[in-house]
Amino acid sequence: MDPDQVAKAFVEHYYTTFDANRTGLANLYQEGSMLTFEGQKIQGSQSIVAKLTSLPFAQCQHSITTVDCQPSGPAGGMLVFVSGNLQLAGEQHALKFSQMFHLMPTSSGSFYVLNDIFRLNYA
Amino acid sequence: MDPDQVAKAFVEHYYTTFDANRTGLANLYQEGSMLTFEGQKIQGSQSIVAKLTSLPFAQCQHSITTVDCQPSGPAGGMLVFVSGNLQLAGEQHALKFSQMFHLMPTSSGSFYVLNDIFRLNYA
Repeated sequence: MDPDQVAKAFVEHYYTTFDANRTGLANLYQEGSMLTFEGQKIQGSQSIVAKLTSLPFAQCQHSITTVDCQPSGPAGGMLVFVSGNLQLAGEQHALKFSQMFHLMPTSSGSFYVLNDIFRLNYA
Repeated sequence: MDPDQVAKAFVEHYYTTFDANRTGLANLYQEGSMLTFEGQKIQGSQSIVAKLTSLPFAQCQHSITTVDCQPSGPAGGMLVFVSGNLQLAGEQHALKFSQMFHLMPTSSGSFYVLNDIFRLNYA
């Protein structure tokens, strides 16, 4: 599978899971994973999912505008850079966001998220 | 020097150099470096700088809104995620952009750019 396809498949899986069942994201992170959410740093799968599930909206829908990916070095990692829109339930306008993921291979041939940085793009 | 300070110093150096003398960016990249510029992938310092110097504007000024950074794994790398505005000479409105850099340590104790992904955030 080529890296661009892996990146697109990851992105689709990530945001579909986020929008349907945020707690389901827990197995994409590990203890060494770090999320920076609007400047706040959170470490470890459990704390990251606690942050994501405590965001002040119940329902949301991500739509993706661009996905870029690059190999991140000899360890077999992959950088995925996403831009898109985030529609919150009950809000008239979608919010624009940018997010990057650093995916690292697992022993089972899959990937987990080592680094995750999220920013809203204010107009 | 703490990682956030390194990231901020890098970002300031990068955009100051970009705005004053784009060819001066060449020594921040190496042969294995990759730039994805608005979806176009370019590999190697020389090709990257050729791309940056051929952009269809002579003068520009970056202003930075946010800088986030995280360690990227055991190899000592660092991920830097930037959002900001890009003002082109003669244009009324600045363009919003997001950019990520994966910095890797050099043998001399400095950093070079292994990965660089740039996207304009269209309104």
